[in-house]
Amino acid sequence: MEYRRLGRTGLQLSVLSYGSWVTFHQQVGDNLGDKLMGLAYDNGINFFDNAEAYEGGKSEEVMGRILKNKNWDRTTYCISSKAFFGMYGKNNKPTQRGLSRKHLTEACHMALKRMQMDYLDLFYCHRPDPEVGMEEIVRTMNTLIAQGKILYWGTSEWSAGDILEANAVAKGLGLEGPAMEQPQYNLFERQKMENDYLPVFKEVGIGTTIWSPLASGLLTGKYNDGVPEGSRLSIEKYGWLKEAALQEERVEKVRQLKTIADELNTSLSALSVAWTIHNPNVTTTILGATKEEQLTENLKALDLYPMLTTEVMDRMDKIMGTKP
Amino acid sequence: MEYRRLGRTGLQLSVLSYGSWVTFHQQVGDNLGDKLMGLAYDNGINFFDNAEAYEGGKSEEVMGRILKNKNWDRTTYCISSKAFFGMYGKNNKPTQRGLSRKHLTEACHMALKRMQMDYLDLFYCHRPDPEVGMEEIVRTMNTLIAQGKILYWGTSEWSAGDILEANAVAKGLGLEGPAMEQPQYNLFERQKMENDYLPVFKEVGIGTTIWSPLASGLLTGKYNDGVPEGSRLSIEKYGWLKEAALQEERVEKVRQLKTIADELNTSLSALSVAWTIHNPNVTTTILGATKEEQLTENLKALDLYPMLTTEVMDRMDKIMGTKP
Amino acid sequence: MEYRRLGRTGLQLSVLSYGSWVTFHQQVGDNLGDKLMGLAYDNGINFFDNAEAYEGGKSEEVMGRILKNKNWDRTTYCISSKAFFGMYGKNNKPTQRGLSRKHLTEACHMALKRMQMDYLDLFYCHRPDPEVGMEEIVRTMNTLIAQGKILYWGTSEWSAGDILEANAVAKGLGLEGPAMEQPQYNLFERQKMENDYLPVFKEVGIGTTIWSPLASGLLTGKYNDGVPEGSRLSIEKYGWLKEAALQEERVEKVRQLKTIADELNTSLSALSVAWTIHNPNVTTTILGATKEEQLTENLKALDLYPMLTTEVMDRMDKIMGTKP
Amino acid sequence: MEYRRLGRTGLQLSVLSYGSWVTFHQQVGDNLGDKLMGLAYDNGINFFDNAEAYEGGKSEEVMGRILKNKNWDRTTYCISSKAFFGMYGKNNKPTQRGLSRKHLTEACHMALKRMQMDYLDLFYCHRPDPEVGMEEIVRTMNTLIAQGKILYWGTSEWSAGDILEANAVAKGLGLEGPAMEQPQYNLFERQKMENDYLPVFKEVGIGTTIWSPLASGLLTGKYNDGVPEGSRLSIEKYGWLKEAALQEERVEKVRQLKTIADELNTSLSALSVAWTIHNPNVTTTILGATKEEQLTENLKALDLYPMLTTEVMDRMDKIMGTKP
Repeated sequence: MEYRRLGRTGLQLSVLSYGSWVTFHQQVGDNLGDKLMGLAYDNGINFFDNAEAYEGGKSEEVMGRILKNKNWDRTTYCISSKAFFGMYGKNNKPTQRGLSRKHLTEACHMALKRMQMDYLDLFYCHRPDPEVGMEEIVRTMNTLIAQGKILYWGTSEWSAGDILEANAVAKGLGLEGPAMEQPQYNLFERQKMENDYLPVFKEVGIGTTIWSPLASGLLTGKYNDGVPEGSRLSIEKYGWLKEAALQEERVEKVRQLKTIADELNTSLSALSVAWTIHNPNVTTTILGATKEEQLTENLKALDLYPMLTTEVMDRMDKIMGTKP
Repeated sequence: MEYRRLGRTGLQLSVLSYGSWVTFHQQVGDNLGDKLMGLAYDNGINFFDNAEAYEGGKSEEVMGRILKNKNWDRTTYCISSKAFFGMYGKNNKPTQRGLSRKHLTEACHMALKRMQMDYLDLFYCHRPDPEVGMEEIVRTMNTLIAQGKILYWGTSEWSAGDILEANAVAKGLGLEGPAMEQPQYNLFERQKMENDYLPVFKEVGIGTTIWSPLASGLLTGKYNDGVPEGSRLSIEKYGWLKEAALQEERVEKVRQLKTIADELNTSLSALSVAWTIHNPNVTTTILGATKEEQLTENLKALDLYPMLTTEVMDRMDKIMGTKP
Repeated sequence: MEYRRLGRTGLQLSVLSYGSWVTFHQQVGDNLGDKLMGLAYDNGINFFDNAEAYEGGKSEEVMGRILKNKNWDRTTYCISSKAFFGMYGKNNKPTQRGLSRKHLTEACHMALKRMQMDYLDLFYCHRPDPEVGMEEIVRTMNTLIAQGKILYWGTSEWSAGDILEANAVAKGLGLEGPAMEQPQYNLFERQKMENDYLPVFKEVGIGTTIWSPLASGLLTGKYNDGVPEGSRLSIEKYGWLKEAALQEERVEKVRQLKTIADELNTSLSALSVAWTIHNPNVTTTILGATKEEQLTENLKALDLYPMLTTEVMDRMDKIMGTKP
Repeated sequence: MEYRRLGRTGLQLSVLSYGSWVTFHQQVGDNLGDKLMGLAYDNGINFFDNAEAYEGGKSEEVMGRILKNKNWDRTTYCISSKAFFGMYGKNNKPTQRGLSRKHLTEACHMALKRMQMDYLDLFYCHRPDPEVGMEEIVRTMNTLIAQGKILYWGTSEWSAGDILEANAVAKGLGLEGPAMEQPQYNLFERQKMENDYLPVFKEVGIGTTIWSPLASGLLTGKYNDGVPEGSRLSIEKYGWLKEAALQEERVEKVRQLKTIADELNTSLSALSVAWTIHNPNVTTTILGATKEEQLTENLKALDLYPMLTTEVMDRMDKIMGTKP
C-alpha cells in the first residue's frame, strides 16, 4: 500500500481507502462487512469513511460493531464521520441537520456513540450551509478539536470559494482551517479537482478524500449491457441516480475505455480507480465495494497506476472529453 | 410550524416557542406542564425558555422533570436558562446574583442540575450588570462554550449600546459575542425592537427571542371588562404589574384592536402574537400560556400573520400610537 | 455587612473577611474554627482566605472539614488558596515551590483536595518569582480558569511593576491578567497601598485583599504593657516577628492611638481595622481572630469606619507618621 | 544536588538526571531498576527520562511499575516521554509514528497509560518531521497542555532553525513554543550545544536535557582495551553504534583524557559527565547507568565540575580537538 499526507497535515492515509456509504446495513450486513473491512485492513487500508447520513446512522453502527469485534489497535487506522444531512432525511427536525453548532456538536457526540469510540480522526461538514455564519462553523470544529473529540476537520462538496473563506476566517481568529475536502472525482467529474481547487491546494494545502471513483458503478462497465438486478443502481431508493448515470452517451465512453483496460490486461474498475490516484492532489480514493472480489479488483489499481503513461492518459482524455 | 435562524447563527428556532416563566410551579404543576409542553412540541415548537429567577429555580425543576418523562430526542429541541437575578430574590447573598464569573458559572451548573441535562442550548445574561467588566462576562460565556456546557450565549433587556460593546470586546479578544437578545416586544413596547436595535441587527446579526407578546395578558382582551379572579394579574405577588398594565387608556386601545380581530375572524391573542412574528427581526416569540386552549389559540398566529397586510398593519399602528 | 467589588471583576466580597492563616491547626482546632467561621458567616463574611503555606496545608484541611460540616451553599462564599512557598518550608523539594507551571498546577490540585472542593474562587501567586518567565505564570493561571479549577487569579506581595508586567503580558497574549493583590496594609505599612499601587488601581483595576490589618497584633494594644503568654508573638516559631514588631517606638504610637479609640468609645482593634476599610482601594480586610470575642470586636469596624472624619484621620496620621 | 531552571521556564531540574533508555527491560529489570531509581532519587535526582521508542514502550512500563511501587510524592519528580519513532520500529503502521496530531495525541495517551500517570511533566518531539506542518505540531502540543495532559513541550535533535521556526509559529498563533531541547552532547559532539544553538539560547530561552554524555560508554574508558562482553556495545541489536564509536582514533583520545582524570583523582566517567554540566547552557545531563556503582561514580561529577579550571578545560579541548 502507498500512503500519502493528508494535505498539509501529518496524517498518512492509505491512497486507497474504504467507505461503508449506503451499502452497510442496506446491502452489506455485519458478517460481510467484517470480511470486507478485514480484507481492506489486511491490504494496508487505514482509512474507513462514514457519515451520519449513511443509512440514518446504521452504517456507523455496523462499522462500530465490526471495529469492536476486530479489536485492531486504534492507532493503526482512521475513522471519519460527517454532519449536515442529519440521520432522518426528510424527517429531520430543523435542529437535526445543517452546520449549526448544535447539530455539529450533537452529530459528533452521536457518531462517537454509534461507532463506540472516544474520538474521530476526521470530521467533515458534509455540504456547505449558507444558513450558518462561517465563524460558527470554524469555532465549533476547533472547540471539538480542543475537547479531544476529533483530530482534523474538513469539508465535503464545498466550492473552492467556500474553502478559502473558511480558511481566511480561521486565520483571522487564530484558529485552524479545514484540513481536507471530500469531493466527487472520477473520469466523468473532473472540474473541481483539476481546475477549481488548484488555488486551494496551493494556498491552503488541503488534502482530498475522493468519493465515487467509479461514478456510481458506471465505470465498472457493468452497465455496458444494461442495469443488472441486485446492483446498486437497481435499488429503487437510489433511482434518482439512474437518469444522469445511464445516459447512453456515457456508457458508450465506458465501452471505449474498456479497450484500454484490455490492452493493459486489467479491468475497467482497476483502471478507473488507478486513474484517480494518478492525480497527486488526491490523498486517498474511497472504495465502496460490496463484494470481496470487487475490493480485490479495485486494489489492483495500486500496481496499475504507475503504468498510466502520458500516452495512455492522453488517450483516456480523448475518449472522455471531460478534461477541464 | 415556521423556523427562523437565530440571527447569524445556524440554530433554527420555531417562530413560536414556549416559556415556563413564573407560571410553572406557581400556576402550572407537573401534570398540566406536561400537557402544555406536549401540545407545544407536537405543534413543532422546539424552544423552551427558562431562567434561574423563575420561581426560584422551581420552574426549571418542573421543566426538567417533564423533559425527563417525555424522553424526546435531545437533538430535537432547545433549552435556555438565564442568570442575573439569582434564585432567592431579595434573599440572594451578594455572590448569588449578577454577571460575575462566579455567578454565571455557578448559575449554569445549577440550571443544568435542575433541568437534569449536560448542556444548555442558550444561556442568557438576564439583565445588564454595570458592576462587572464586560471582558469578564465575555470570557466567562466563552469558557462555558469551550467546556461544552452551553452552545450559544446572549443577553436579555440589554441596551443596543451594551450589546454593541459586548460584541466589540469579544472581537477584540478573538472571542464570540452574544448571539441573541431577549427583549420585551408587543404592541405597546416597540421602541427597542423597531428602533434601538436596528444597528445591532445590521452589524452584529443578533437574533431575538421575544417575551411578553401579550403585554402580561393585557392584549388577550381579558381585562377589557376588568381583572378576573385567577388570572395572572390577580395574583398579589405580581401586583406591581397592575398599575402600569391596567391603565384604562391602554385597555381602550385593546378594545379597538378587537374590531380588527373580529374582522379577521380571529382572537385578540392570535392577532397580537401574529403581529410580533410579522417583524422579520423577531426570531421567535415566547408564549406563556397556562391553559391548553390558550396555547392552541396562540398557535393560530402562525396562519394569521401572512394575512396582516400593509393596510391592516397601518390601522393597528394608528390605534396603538406606539410606533417609534 | 458591606460588600465591595473585587477591582474590575464582578465578585462582591464582604469588606471584612476571615483568614485561617497559621492559627488554624496551630492555635485553632476544628471546634474553635467551626465557631469562628460560623460567627464570621453569620455576620455576612463571605470570603475565607487560605494558602498552601499556612501550617503546611493543615490550615486548609481544617477549613475543608469545617466547610464540609457546615454544608453552607457553595455559592454563598468564596475560598482562596495561594501557591509559592510550598507545604514543607525548608524541606520543599525544588519542584514543590515557586510559580512554575508544575507547582502552580499541582498546588491547585492539592488545595482542592485538602479543602474537598471542585474549584477555588481565588488563587494567588503568594510571592513574585524571578525564576519563572511571566508568560508561564499568566498562561498557567488562564489554563486553570479554562479548566474550571479556579475563578480568578491574583498576586500577593508583588510590586506595582510586577503586576503591571503581568497585566501587559496577559493583554499581549489575549489572556486574563491578575484580578487582585493581597498586600500587607495597616497603620504602620502604607507605602504600597497608598502610593506604589495607585497606577495599578487606575490602569488595571485590581482589587485588594488586605492582610495583617493589626500589624501582627501590635495594633490591638495588647503589647502596650509587654508580650503576654499565649499570644501569637509569644510562640517561638514566629519569633522572627518580635524584633520588628516590638520596637518600643511603635508601641508608643499605639498608646497614643488608644486616646482616639477611647474618644470614639471603641477599641484599638476596631479602630485599626476600620482605618483600613476607610481606604476605598481596599476590597476586603482579612481578620485573623483566634477568639470569638476578638472577631466580634473586629467586626465593630463596620459601624465605626464611617465615623472616621477627616479630622480623626489627620490626627491618626500625625501620631503614626507613616503616610507616604 | 544542584538544580537548574529549564531555560525560561520555572521548572527546577536536578543538573544530573536519570534515563531508562533502552536499558530498562533489556538489561535492567524491575528489581535493578528499582534500586537504580531509588539511588538516583535519594541523591536528589528529580528528572527521569523516557520515550515511547525505548524498548517499544517496555521501558516506560518498567518505570511506571517502579514509580507506583516507590509511591514518591508526585510533586517531587518530573517524568518525560517522547513521540516520533513509534513503538514498533520498522513495524510501525504509517499512523503510528511521526509528529502528526494523531500520533502525538495517541502517543501521549499511551505513555500516560504505560506509566500509570495523569500527566507528563515533559513531552518531546523526538525528532523533527518534515512531513508535518509546524502549525500542527505547535497546536497539538498546546492542546495537550490545555487538557492538562502535559506541562511542558520540547524537541529532541532538532536543528536550531527548526526550533526557531517552532517558536516563531507559536508566537504568531499566540501559543507556547518549545521549552526544551534534548540533544546529544559530550566531548565528541559539541557542534550543536556550543555553536548552533547559541541564538536559540539567547532568543528563545530554551533549556537542554543532554543525552549520551559518555558517548555510548566510550568516555567511560571501558573500550580503552576493547569491547567487553555484556556491555551495551556488545549487544548485537545496537551494533550500528559500533562502527562510529569504536574508531581507534577516538579511543586514543579517551586514553589521553585518562591522564587528566588520574591527576584529578577521579574516573573518566565522572570527568566526562562533569565536563557537560560545566556548560551553563546544559540544564541537566541524563545518566544511563545500569549498575549502582556506575551511577554512584557518575554522581561524583557534581563535586568535580567546579574543579574544572580554565587550564584543565583547555587541556581537554586540546586532546579532543572537537571544540567548534
